Amino acid sequence: MTVAPGLPEHVPAAGLPRAVRIVEVGPRDGLQNEAHPVPAAVKVEFIERLAAAGLRTVEATSFVNPAWVPQLADAAEVFPAIRRHPGVRYPVLVPNLRGLDGALAAGATDIAVFASATETFARRNLAQGLDSQFDMFTPVLARALASGMSVRGYLSMCFGDPWEGVVPVEQVVAAGRRLLDLGCVELSLGDTIGVATAGQVTRLLDGFGAAGVGVDRLAVHFHDTYGQALSNTLSALRSGVTVVDASAGGLGGCPFAKSATGNLATEDLVWLLTGLGIEHGVDLPALVATSVWMAEHLGRPSPSAAVRALAGSARP
Amino acid sequence: MTVAPGLPEHVPAAGLPRAVRIVEVGPRDGLQNEAHPVPAAVKVEFIERLAAAGLRTVEATSFVNPAWVPQLADAAEVFPAIRRHPGVRYPVLVPNLRGLDGALAAGATDIAVFASATETFARRNLAQGLDSQFDMFTPVLARALASGMSVRGYLSMCFGDPWEGVVPVEQVVAAGRRLLDLGCVELSLGDTIGVATAGQVTRLLDGFGAAGVGVDRLAVHFHDTYGQALSNTLSALRSGVTVVDASAGGLGGCPFAKSATGNLATEDLVWLLTGLGIEHGVDLPALVATSVWMAEHLGRPSPSAAVRALAGSARP
Repeated sequence: MTVAPGLPEHVPAAGLPRAVRIVEVGPRDGLQNEAHPVPAAVKVEFIERLAAAGLRTVEATSFVNPAWVPQLADAAEVFPAIRRHPGVRYPVLVPNLRGLDGALAAGATDIAVFASATETFARRNLAQGLDSQFDMFTPVLARALASGMSVRGYLSMCFGDPWEGVVPVEQVVAAGRRLLDLGCVELSLGDTIGVATAGQVTRLLDGFGAAGVGVDRLAVHFHDTYGQALSNTLSALRSGVTVVDASAGGLGGCPFAKSATGNLATEDLVWLLTGLGIEHGVDLPALVATSVWMAEHLGRPSPSAAVRALAGSARP
Repeated sequence: MTVAPGLPEHVPAAGLPRAVRIVEVGPRDGLQNEAHPVPAAVKVEFIERLAAAGLRTVEATSFVNPAWVPQLADAAEVFPAIRRHPGVRYPVLVPNLRGLDGALAAGATDIAVFASATETFARRNLAQGLDSQFDMFTPVLARALASGMSVRGYLSMCFGDPWEGVVPVEQVVAAGRRLLDLGCVELSLGDTIGVATAGQVTRLLDGFGAAGVGVDRLAVHFHDTYGQALSNTLSALRSGVTVVDASAGGLGGCPFAKSATGNLATEDLVWLLTGLGIEHGVDLPALVATSVWMAEHLGRPSPSAAVRALAGSARP
């Protein structure tokens, strides 16, 4: 059974944004969870193909301690090797000043810092407290901004936390505001364990609005652990969010493991946006072909539904 | 990483229904796509466990020509063996008078007929034209209603058709109205190939409304081929739909095949409804345990994200 060309049909819905910028996180958030290392040359080709497919923001890698994330230990090799497309930004993750040194030396112009909205995850992921984590970011932001860099802030565990349960909106808003006050140009709200549902998304975005943070400074970052990533995204679009994180092919967690924690698949998001008539700039067949190619490198099928459905018709 | 009890948090969203009735289609729409036959005793236990988990409508089997659907050739054995729970309905699929005879003989009180919204699929699936298919249903409905049965109507290819492309709203509404005019108590609108997106769902439901068919007579039936099933469901809920078809564990298509056509997973739907504070009556751990048990019988993991995430904590 083949699908006729032209699908999905464009049927705009009232109250949604005209255009969405997708932040493609596959090369970083996706590959950092792979059990087997991916060669640097494959990473470079992956990043270049994603940009060629029309993605305007491609998070390329992470300058973290290789002992923490061995999968991305080759950041200093990968980043300078990327042939950059005009108009495309290639942020890299940076936890501290040492990481910033690496990012600057490699020629990065955009970085992202990552904070936690909960005490427990701050301690486990950053070895810092909920409050003290910001002390770690202060000098990073100061030097990055002085170097002319653009800095994005990630906030983890914005909805539920595996140790603390439901995370209070005020706590998330307070942590997010601190990242923005430090100079982050954009705040990405992460449902790290994928437990959020659509009403919770609306409530959190409303909470930021009530605290004076407009949706123009907010992005959303959903994981599909309970199958909610796309419906949560739809909910965020209805609240006016125009920046959505996604991972090509749904990279970012093994779909066959018990605690599957894959990212929202970029292809599934593109299908939705196309259907809604929301501009995104992505060439879906080129993106699917890229994800099929990467799945072959990784030796397992893509967890993205759209990739599986379209793989047969993808360009080689 | 374990998820704390109590998640997802209940966060109602404005404009959504207070309660939803889930029509569980796993034993029929799910198992009819299985390559290997499932023993009748396993089917009976599956149906009984689904009802015990709180599902109030469990589509049990199909009285179709065994040459068409060999997987359900044991309908006359399965159906009478079910120990029926009070308050639970067990509809069976019936294509024609011969099927109705079988359903009546087995003791069914609820049936469903299935029509196509497109000419090509009517010819391929029913060997009838778009118009003439209703001639086939007329005597079935007449005798079923005279026997005191309740009849549901399924309409396939309501959004896109693999041969005809986008299906015009007026064409779908006209076909749906004919099923209702024949006496169907409820019309289930199927996105058989899973191509629909959220705006298209709203438009079709609006189209029925404009033709005088209220959402109280409509159900939705989404497939997850392109990852859109749950966001389409959210869109339908916003339009006031209160009956949603789903399949336990996402049964209904091989998740590893190119043309994956799995149904919306009941567990992913239950996670969404619970989060939204919408009543559904389902015991999620009991349902997950049932899907895990069935996946073991089928020899492959469930494609439901929520089942995979919760499988570790499911009751045996």
